[in-house]
Amino acid sequence: MREVEVKALVMDPQQQMPVLLLREPQSERVVPVWIGHPEATAIAIVLQNREFPRPLTHDLLRATFKVLGAELEMIVIDSIQDSTYYATLHVRDPQKQSHQIDARPSDAIAIALRTGSPIYISEEIFQLAAVEMPSSEEEPGGKRDKFMNFVEAEMRLAEFKRFAQ
Amino acid sequence: MREVEVKALVMDPQQQMPVLLLREPQSERVVPVWIGHPEATAIAIVLQNREFPRPLTHDLLRATFKVLGAELEMIVIDSIQDSTYYATLHVRDPQKQSHQIDARPSDAIAIALRTGSPIYISEEIFQLAAVEMPSSEEEPGGKRDKFMNFVEAEMRLAEFKRFAQ
Repeated sequence: MREVEVKALVMDPQQQMPVLLLREPQSERVVPVWIGHPEATAIAIVLQNREFPRPLTHDLLRATFKVLGAELEMIVIDSIQDSTYYATLHVRDPQKQSHQIDARPSDAIAIALRTGSPIYISEEIFQLAAVEMPSSEEEPGGKRDKFMNFVEAEMRLAEFKRFAQ
Repeated sequence: MREVEVKALVMDPQQQMPVLLLREPQSERVVPVWIGHPEATAIAIVLQNREFPRPLTHDLLRATFKVLGAELEMIVIDSIQDSTYYATLHVRDPQKQSHQIDARPSDAIAIALRTGSPIYISEEIFQLAAVEMPSSEEEPGGKRDKFMNFVEAEMRLAEFKRFAQ
Protein backbone atom coordinates (compact mmCIF):
# COMPACT_ATOMS: atom_id res chain seq x y z
CA MET A 1 0.00 0.00 0.00
CA ARG A 2 1.05 3.56 -0.65
CA GLU A 3 -0.11 6.61 1.22
CA VAL A 4 -1.27 9.39 -1.09
CA GLU A 5 -2.54 12.94 -0.76
CA VAL A 6 -5.03 14.91 -2.81
CA LYS A 7 -2.80 16.89 -5.14
CA ALA A 8 -5.56 18.60 -7.09
CA LEU A 9 -9.17 18.49 -8.15
CA VAL A 10 -9.46 19.32 -11.82
CA MET A 11 -12.04 19.15 -14.56
CA ASP A 12 -11.83 16.86 -17.56
CA PRO A 13 -13.55 19.04 -20.17
CA GLN A 14 -13.95 16.22 -22.68
CA GLN A 15 -16.00 14.08 -20.33
CA GLN A 16 -17.27 17.02 -18.30
CA MET A 17 -16.30 15.15 -15.19
CA PRO A 18 -14.19 16.15 -12.19
CA VAL A 19 -10.94 14.27 -11.69
CA LEU A 20 -9.07 13.85 -8.42
CA LEU A 21 -5.31 13.64 -8.72
CA LEU A 22 -3.87 11.56 -5.88
CA ARG A 23 -0.13 11.95 -5.41
CA GLU A 24 2.39 10.00 -3.43
CA PRO A 25 4.30 12.54 -1.32
CA GLN A 26 7.75 13.36 -2.69
CA SER A 27 6.79 11.82 -6.00
CA GLU A 28 5.67 13.18 -9.33
CA ARG A 29 3.40 10.25 -10.02
CA VAL A 30 -0.32 10.77 -9.66
CA VAL A 31 -3.34 8.48 -9.84
CA PRO A 32 -6.30 10.17 -11.57
CA VAL A 33 -9.74 9.19 -10.25
CA TRP A 34 -12.85 10.37 -12.09
CA ILE A 35 -15.63 11.23 -9.66
CA GLY A 36 -19.17 12.60 -9.57
CA HIS A 37 -20.07 16.28 -9.32
CA PRO A 38 -21.69 16.22 -5.86
CA GLU A 39 -18.69 14.42 -4.38
CA ALA A 40 -16.32 16.81 -6.18
CA THR A 41 -18.14 19.71 -4.55
CA ALA A 42 -17.88 18.00 -1.16
CA ILE A 43 -14.12 17.63 -1.67
CA ALA A 44 -13.60 21.12 -3.13
CA ILE A 45 -15.20 22.66 -0.06
CA VAL A 46 -12.55 21.10 2.19
CA LEU A 47 -9.67 21.90 -0.17
CA GLN A 48 -10.80 25.53 -0.28
CA ASN A 49 -11.38 25.72 3.48
CA ARG A 50 -14.95 26.80 2.89
CA GLU A 51 -17.51 26.49 5.59
CA PHE A 52 -21.25 26.20 5.31
CA PRO A 53 -23.75 27.11 7.99
CA ARG A 54 -25.36 23.67 7.80
CA PRO A 55 -23.67 20.25 7.80
CA LEU A 56 -23.31 18.75 4.33
CA THR A 57 -23.72 15.01 3.83
CA HIS A 58 -20.08 14.11 4.48
CA ASP A 59 -20.05 16.36 7.55
CA LEU A 60 -22.99 14.30 8.77
CA LEU A 61 -20.93 11.15 8.29
CA ARG A 62 -18.10 12.65 10.31
CA ALA A 63 -20.56 13.67 13.03
CA THR A 64 -21.97 10.13 13.05
CA PHE A 65 -18.52 8.64 13.64
CA LYS A 66 -17.89 11.13 16.42
CA VAL A 67 -21.21 10.66 18.20
CA LEU A 68 -20.86 6.86 18.10
CA GLY A 69 -17.27 7.05 19.39
CA ALA A 70 -15.86 5.52 16.21
CA GLU A 71 -12.64 6.50 14.49
CA LEU A 72 -11.89 6.45 10.78
CA GLU A 73 -8.41 4.93 10.89
CA MET A 74 -7.76 5.08 7.17
CA ILE A 75 -9.35 4.70 3.79
CA VAL A 76 -7.91 2.40 1.16
CA ILE A 77 -8.56 2.39 -2.58
CA ASP A 78 -8.07 -1.31 -2.84
CA SER A 79 -9.55 -2.78 -6.00
CA ILE A 80 -10.74 -2.08 -9.49
CA GLN A 81 -13.53 -3.79 -11.45
CA ASP A 82 -14.82 -2.77 -14.87
CA SER A 83 -12.81 0.45 -14.74
CA THR A 84 -14.39 1.38 -11.41
CA TYR A 85 -12.25 1.87 -8.31
CA TYR A 86 -13.46 0.44 -5.02
CA ALA A 87 -12.50 1.81 -1.63
CA THR A 88 -12.84 0.63 1.95
CA LEU A 89 -13.31 2.65 5.12
CA HIS A 90 -11.41 1.14 8.04
CA VAL A 91 -13.33 2.09 11.15
CA ARG A 92 -12.52 1.36 14.80
CA ASP A 93 -15.46 1.26 17.19
CA PRO A 94 -15.34 2.33 20.88
CA GLN A 95 -14.53 -1.28 21.85
CA LYS A 96 -11.45 -1.00 19.60
CA GLN A 97 -12.87 -3.50 17.15
CA SER A 98 -12.14 -2.91 13.49
CA HIS A 99 -14.78 -2.78 10.77
CA GLN A 100 -14.56 -2.33 7.04
CA ILE A 101 -17.17 -0.47 5.00
CA ASP A 102 -17.38 -0.62 1.21
CA ALA A 103 -17.40 2.86 -0.36
CA ARG A 104 -16.80 4.79 -3.53
CA PRO A 105 -13.33 6.43 -3.51
CA SER A 106 -14.95 9.87 -3.83
CA ASP A 107 -17.03 9.43 -0.68
CA ALA A 108 -14.12 7.83 1.16
CA ILE A 109 -11.82 10.75 0.31
CA ALA A 110 -14.47 13.38 1.09
CA ILE A 111 -14.73 11.91 4.59
CA ALA A 112 -11.00 11.28 5.09
CA LEU A 113 -10.28 14.95 4.33
CA ARG A 114 -12.76 15.92 7.05
CA THR A 115 -11.47 13.50 9.70
CA GLY A 116 -7.79 13.92 8.79
CA SER A 117 -7.52 10.19 8.14
CA PRO A 118 -4.76 8.85 5.87
CA ILE A 119 -5.55 7.83 2.29
CA TYR A 120 -3.94 4.71 0.87
CA ILE A 121 -3.90 3.05 -2.54
CA SER A 122 -3.08 -0.61 -3.01
CA GLU A 123 0.24 -1.30 -4.68
CA GLU A 124 -1.51 -3.07 -7.53
CA ILE A 125 -3.72 -0.10 -8.38
CA PHE A 126 -0.90 2.36 -7.99
CA GLN A 127 1.22 0.44 -10.50
CA LEU A 128 -1.72 0.12 -12.85
CA ALA A 129 -2.99 3.69 -12.74
CA ALA A 130 -0.18 6.04 -11.73
CA VAL A 131 1.05 8.42 -14.40
CA GLU A 132 3.79 11.02 -14.24
CA MET A 133 2.60 14.43 -13.16
CA PRO A 134 3.53 16.91 -15.86
CA SER A 135 5.98 19.51 -14.62
CA SER A 136 5.48 23.08 -15.73
CA GLU A 137 9.00 23.22 -17.20
CA GLU A 138 8.24 20.62 -19.79
CA GLU A 139 8.12 21.60 -23.41
CA PRO A 140 4.83 21.45 -25.31
CA GLY A 141 4.04 18.08 -26.75
CA GLY A 142 5.69 16.27 -23.86
CA LYS A 143 4.10 14.39 -21.03
CA ARG A 144 2.09 17.47 -20.27
CA ASP A 145 -0.17 16.55 -23.18
CA LYS A 146 -1.76 13.94 -21.04
CA PHE A 147 -3.10 16.64 -18.77
CA MET A 148 -3.33 19.68 -20.97
CA ASN A 149 -7.04 19.29 -21.45
CA PHE A 150 -7.60 19.59 -17.72
CA VAL A 151 -8.56 22.95 -16.38
CA GLU A 152 -8.95 23.96 -12.77
CA ALA A 153 -12.41 22.97 -11.69
CA GLU A 154 -14.69 25.85 -11.05
CA MET A 155 -16.96 24.54 -8.36
CA ARG A 156 -19.82 26.97 -8.48
CA LEU A 157 -19.93 27.39 -4.76
CA ALA A 158 -22.20 30.41 -4.75
CA GLU A 159 -24.82 28.49 -6.66
CA PHE A 160 -24.24 25.43 -4.53
CA LYS A 161 -24.74 27.48 -1.40
CA ARG A 162 -28.17 28.45 -2.63
CA PHE A 163 -29.12 24.81 -2.83
CA ALA A 164 -27.49 23.69 0.38
CA GLN A 165 -30.52 23.59 2.67
CA MET B 1 -44.88 16.11 16.80
CA ARG B 2 -46.55 14.72 13.74
CA GLU B 3 -45.40 11.76 11.72
CA VAL B 4 -45.25 12.47 8.00
CA GLU B 5 -44.44 10.58 4.82
CA VAL B 6 -42.83 11.69 1.59
CA LYS B 7 -45.82 12.37 -0.64
CA ALA B 8 -43.88 13.56 -3.67
CA LEU B 9 -40.67 15.03 -4.94
CA VAL B 10 -41.42 17.78 -7.42
CA MET B 11 -39.59 20.57 -9.17
CA ASP B 12 -40.21 24.24 -8.55
CA PRO B 13 -39.53 25.64 -12.03
CA GLN B 14 -39.32 29.25 -10.89
CA GLN B 15 -36.50 28.60 -8.47
CA GLN B 16 -35.21 25.57 -10.36
CA MET B 17 -35.08 23.72 -7.08
CA PRO B 18 -36.51 20.36 -6.04
CA VAL B 19 -39.25 20.43 -3.42
CA LEU B 20 -40.18 17.59 -1.09
CA LEU B 21 -43.84 17.41 -0.15
CA LEU B 22 -44.23 15.83 3.29
CA ARG B 23 -47.76 14.69 4.09
CA GLU B 24 -49.43 13.62 7.26
CA PRO B 25 -51.09 10.27 6.53
CA GLN B 26 -54.86 10.52 6.03
CA SER B 27 -54.55 14.25 5.59
CA GLU B 28 -54.48 16.58 2.65
CA ARG B 29 -52.04 18.97 4.26
CA VAL B 30 -48.44 18.93 3.09
CA VAL B 31 -45.29 20.68 4.20
CA PRO B 32 -43.10 21.72 1.25
CA VAL B 33 -39.34 21.59 1.87
CA TRP B 34 -36.97 23.02 -0.75
CA ILE B 35 -33.82 20.90 -1.01
CA GLY B 36 -30.59 20.64 -3.00
CA HIS B 37 -30.18 18.71 -6.23
CA PRO B 38 -27.77 16.01 -4.98
CA GLU B 39 -30.04 15.23 -2.03
CA ALA B 40 -33.09 15.23 -4.32
CA THR B 41 -31.35 12.64 -6.48
CA ALA B 42 -30.52 10.58 -3.39
CA ILE B 43 -34.21 10.67 -2.40
CA ALA B 44 -35.56 10.07 -5.92
CA ILE B 45 -33.49 6.90 -6.19
CA VAL B 46 -35.26 5.39 -3.17
CA LEU B 47 -38.72 6.59 -4.25
CA GLN B 48 -38.18 5.03 -7.67
CA ASN B 49 -36.73 1.80 -6.24
CA ARG B 50 -33.61 2.27 -8.29
CA GLU B 51 -30.44 0.49 -7.42
CA PHE B 52 -26.89 1.40 -8.19
CA PRO B 53 -23.97 -0.98 -8.32
CA ARG B 54 -21.99 1.14 -5.85
CA PRO B 55 -23.11 2.62 -2.54
CA LEU B 56 -24.08 6.28 -2.78
CA THR B 57 -23.29 8.67 0.06
CA HIS B 58 -26.49 8.05 2.02
CA ASP B 59 -26.09 4.29 1.53
CA LEU B 60 -22.69 4.72 3.15
CA LEU B 61 -24.33 6.42 6.10
CA ARG B 62 -26.78 3.54 6.45
CA ALA B 63 -23.88 1.06 6.26
CA THR B 64 -22.03 3.04 8.94
CA PHE B 65 -24.99 2.80 11.32
CA LYS B 66 -25.28 -0.91 10.65
CA VAL B 67 -21.59 -1.74 11.07
CA LEU B 68 -21.43 0.22 14.33
CA GLY B 69 -24.58 -1.48 15.63
CA ALA B 70 -26.48 1.79 15.80
CA GLU B 71 -30.12 2.31 14.95
CA LEU B 72 -31.75 5.39 13.44
CA GLU B 73 -34.84 5.58 15.63
CA MET B 74 -36.40 8.57 13.92
CA ILE B 75 -35.64 11.86 12.32
CA VAL B 76 -37.34 15.06 13.38
CA ILE B 77 -37.64 18.33 11.50
CA ASP B 78 -37.67 20.36 14.65
CA SER B 79 -36.80 23.99 14.08
CA ILE B 80 -36.60 26.79 11.56
CA GLN B 81 -34.18 29.69 11.45
CA ASP B 82 -33.92 32.29 8.68
CA SER B 83 -36.26 30.27 6.46
CA THR B 84 -34.06 27.18 6.84
CA TYR B 85 -35.41 24.01 8.39
CA TYR B 86 -33.25 22.09 10.85
CA ALA B 87 -33.52 18.38 11.49
CA THR B 88 -32.16 15.97 14.07
CA LEU B 89 -31.22 12.32 13.71
CA HIS B 90 -32.14 10.33 16.81
CA VAL B 91 -29.66 7.48 16.99
CA ARG B 92 -29.45 4.62 19.49
CA ASP B 93 -26.02 3.08 19.98
CA PRO B 94 -25.39 -0.64 20.83
CA GLN B 95 -25.45 0.24 24.54
CA LYS B 96 -28.99 1.58 23.99
CA GLN B 97 -27.86 5.12 24.64
CA SER B 98 -29.56 7.85 22.61
CA HIS B 99 -27.68 10.46 20.60
CA GLN B 100 -28.87 13.38 18.54
CA ILE B 101 -27.12 14.55 15.39
CA ASP B 102 -27.83 17.88 13.70
CA ALA B 103 -28.67 17.46 9.99
CA ARG B 104 -30.29 19.11 7.03
CA PRO B 105 -33.84 17.77 6.48
CA SER B 106 -32.84 16.54 3.01
CA ASP B 107 -30.02 14.37 4.35
CA ALA B 108 -32.13 13.19 7.27
CA ILE B 109 -34.96 12.12 4.94
CA ALA B 110 -32.60 10.50 2.42
CA ILE B 111 -31.30 8.30 5.25
CA ALA B 112 -34.66 7.67 6.91
CA LEU B 113 -36.05 6.37 3.61
CA ARG B 114 -33.14 3.91 3.46
CA THR B 115 -33.41 2.69 7.05
CA GLY B 116 -37.21 2.72 7.16
CA SER B 117 -37.12 5.12 10.10
CA PRO B 118 -40.12 7.34 10.85
CA ILE B 119 -40.09 11.01 9.87
CA TYR B 120 -41.54 13.57 12.25
CA ILE B 121 -42.19 17.29 12.10
CA SER B 122 -42.58 19.43 15.20
CA GLU B 123 -46.09 20.72 15.81
CA GLU B 124 -44.85 24.30 15.58
CA ILE B 125 -43.36 23.83 12.11
CA PHE B 126 -46.32 21.85 10.88
CA GLN B 127 -48.69 24.66 11.86
CA LEU B 128 -46.40 27.24 10.31
CA ALA B 129 -45.65 25.52 7.02
CA ALA B 130 -48.43 23.07 6.18
CA VAL B 131 -50.62 23.94 3.22
CA GLU B 132 -53.58 22.10 1.76
CA MET B 133 -52.68 19.65 -0.93
CA PRO B 134 -54.61 20.53 -4.07
CA SER B 135 -57.00 17.80 -5.10
CA SER B 136 -57.25 17.00 -8.79
CA GLU B 137 -61.01 17.64 -8.79
CA GLU B 138 -60.63 21.28 -7.96
CA GLU B 139 -61.52 23.87 -10.50
CA PRO B 140 -58.82 25.99 -12.08
CA GLY B 141 -57.93 29.06 -10.07
CA GLY B 142 -58.55 27.32 -6.77
CA LYS B 143 -56.06 26.10 -4.22
CA ARG B 144 -54.36 24.22 -6.98
CA ASP B 145 -52.80 27.52 -8.06
CA LYS B 146 -50.40 27.25 -5.21
CA PHE B 147 -48.90 24.18 -6.79
CA MET B 148 -49.58 24.65 -10.45
CA ASN B 149 -46.04 25.75 -11.14
CA PHE B 150 -44.70 22.48 -9.84
CA VAL B 151 -43.94 19.81 -12.37
CA GLU B 152 -42.80 16.28 -11.69
CA ALA B 153 -39.09 16.34 -11.15
CA GLU B 154 -37.12 14.70 -13.85
CA MET B 155 -34.12 13.37 -12.03
CA ARG B 156 -31.74 12.71 -14.84
CA LEU B 157 -30.80 9.31 -13.54
CA ALA B 158 -29.05 8.15 -16.67
CA GLU B 159 -26.70 11.09 -16.49
CA PHE B 160 -26.31 10.67 -12.77
CA LYS B 161 -25.42 7.02 -13.22
CA ARG B 162 -22.56 8.03 -15.46
CA PHE B 163 -21.14 10.14 -12.66
CA ALA B 164 -21.79 7.73 -9.85
CA GLN B 165 -18.30 6.23 -9.47
